[in-house]
Amino acid sequence: MPDPPLLLAARRRPTPFTPVWLMRQAGRYLPEYRALRARHAFLELAKTPQTAAEVTLQPVERLGVDAAILFADILLIVEPLGVGLEFAKGEGPVIHRPVRSEADVARLAPVDVASAVGFVFETVRLVKRALPLRVPLIGFAGAPFTVASYVVEGGPSRDYLATKRLMREAPNAWHRLMTLLADATAAYLNGQIAAGAAVVQLFDSWVGALAPDDYRAFVLPHTRAVIAALTPGTPVIHFGTGTAGLLPLLREAGGDVIGLDWRVDLDAGWRAVGEDVGVQGNLDPVALLSPPETFEPAVRSILRRAAGRPGHIFNLGHGVLESTPVEHVKALVDMVHELSAR
Amino acid sequence: MPDPPLLLAARRRPTPFTPVWLMRQAGRYLPEYRALRARHAFLELAKTPQTAAEVTLQPVERLGVDAAILFADILLIVEPLGVGLEFAKGEGPVIHRPVRSEADVARLAPVDVASAVGFVFETVRLVKRALPLRVPLIGFAGAPFTVASYVVEGGPSRDYLATKRLMREAPNAWHRLMTLLADATAAYLNGQIAAGAAVVQLFDSWVGALAPDDYRAFVLPHTRAVIAALTPGTPVIHFGTGTAGLLPLLREAGGDVIGLDWRVDLDAGWRAVGEDVGVQGNLDPVALLSPPETFEPAVRSILRRAAGRPGHIFNLGHGVLESTPVEHVKALVDMVHELSAR
Repeated sequence: MPDPPLLLAARRRPTPFTPVWLMRQAGRYLPEYRALRARHAFLELAKTPQTAAEVTLQPVERLGVDAAILFADILLIVEPLGVGLEFAKGEGPVIHRPVRSEADVARLAPVDVASAVGFVFETVRLVKRALPLRVPLIGFAGAPFTVASYVVEGGPSRDYLATKRLMREAPNAWHRLMTLLADATAAYLNGQIAAGAAVVQLFDSWVGALAPDDYRAFVLPHTRAVIAALTPGTPVIHFGTGTAGLLPLLREAGGDVIGLDWRVDLDAGWRAVGEDVGVQGNLDPVALLSPPETFEPAVRSILRRAAGRPGHIFNLGHGVLESTPVEHVKALVDMVHELSAR
Repeated sequence: MPDPPLLLAARRRPTPFTPVWLMRQAGRYLPEYRALRARHAFLELAKTPQTAAEVTLQPVERLGVDAAILFADILLIVEPLGVGLEFAKGEGPVIHRPVRSEADVARLAPVDVASAVGFVFETVRLVKRALPLRVPLIGFAGAPFTVASYVVEGGPSRDYLATKRLMREAPNAWHRLMTLLADATAAYLNGQIAAGAAVVQLFDSWVGALAPDDYRAFVLPHTRAVIAALTPGTPVIHFGTGTAGLLPLLREAGGDVIGLDWRVDLDAGWRAVGEDVGVQGNLDPVALLSPPETFEPAVRSILRRAAGRPGHIFNLGHGVLESTPVEHVKALVDMVHELSAR
């Protein structure tokens, strides 16, 4: 049996069609997910291997995607730091004791990854056993900057004022925090790989808030340390949004495949990261709210810009939006397969 | 007397130092502005030429900037459309009757610019009379996309779901709305120029939310129409944020100077728009929250990337944040003048 198309593409080998999966393909737009969430709190779902595996598997058959993505949250790894993580109803994550100073960083508890997030590794094992062979499982973690931004701001942010102030006003504290997160993240991803993840994605979702010089000084060394510490042989997807001006630096930090959001033409983005890595993307998630005939031109444009060159994994530029009709998502997956069949 | 440095730079002529002004230099971070706002509602301030002129002039002497920017709001032009514009306390603008369909667009009242925003032209005349000769006045308007996004969403937005759906699902309605806004905007800016604005800036602040293909199809023709209709001889600054992947298209739409936010290196951004136009930018506004010694390296980096080439206007990548200490802003202006003196 040949390697699954997603693994071939991640290694820039030819594939019979362009493989496709969607960020947040397991999530709130799916009625079967909402049914589970009606009975279980978010953290309970994520921390119970049986339910987390069920959520991971829900979209795979229904959509015909070429990969499963682990159901988890990028902040699970910060819970053991003792910062008071809570998933407040309808408000997203809240961190009750944000880290804003040298002293705050010194107080952080060390993370024993095996005991802190062992339930994630168990979920990976359950999913791996249940998946068809042609569908690899993608493990993931938040990249140090994006995770640090929640830890410093205390939740989601628009302008990252506290995060950027910590960088500039207490650079030693910042680098200690980032080093601690990078170490935990590498161990976390290696644990997922050991348990059966065939690919891992590093989500630096909010890194596009930074000036390139700040990325270079305050982020790049830490992201590079995570990627360099990963078990060799497992492809790494390095993803961010709003990164059109940062792409050469993301590539410098590492990854076999660089994620492109929708705010850059796929061919321009691929040139910016270099054609000796793969790219993933890059349809605007909002496109899926409208009927398939309205997003078909954008899908064709993305495939045309990829020019049939090995190394393209089709995806949205960010996660599926909650109000997306399931049938539009299914239509997208079929459309990518049909239009790219070689 | 030679032309003011800002005008020279806008025409890519050599200047004795790099001219600098700041978006939102007249605004909430200034105690004298907050004192006025304590006595007057926002719209009352903006609509009364005496107070609007006072606010426009407040930062000029205090900071030593090289331009004044008209105190107004990009949504003043939509009030006469009859969409129910309100500046709700602490919430930003609210539009009570958002435009979401062909029928909604058909219902819009035509805008008689001279009578609808005559108070703005009077403000321009008052400011022009009060300003020293070395300080030109910059007039401004919102670009059609950014103004349309408020009109369609009903206020500020994160994902622009309704705006993007209108584009894709009712393209005729979208183009009619954009044509109407483009016509009003050109007349509005020409009125400001006739009253004494020496430069105008078109704010397409939120256009960075779009994929390049969508910009090309749904926005570029309308922005180009505005710029092409402006009184010849007045330099035009064309500004947006999050536009690193859109820069060649912004330039194609027009403008003598293209605004760069902080998320792209100034030299890379200048290459992307072409060295036969000027650039404005591009310090991260958050940098000004920390002491001057922490932002000096970033200021030096921006000036180094501009390489002394005529056509650079120093600015932030977006507006001054409310929590910015005034003395940091003053230090920035002095720093730019000193470090760039030729």
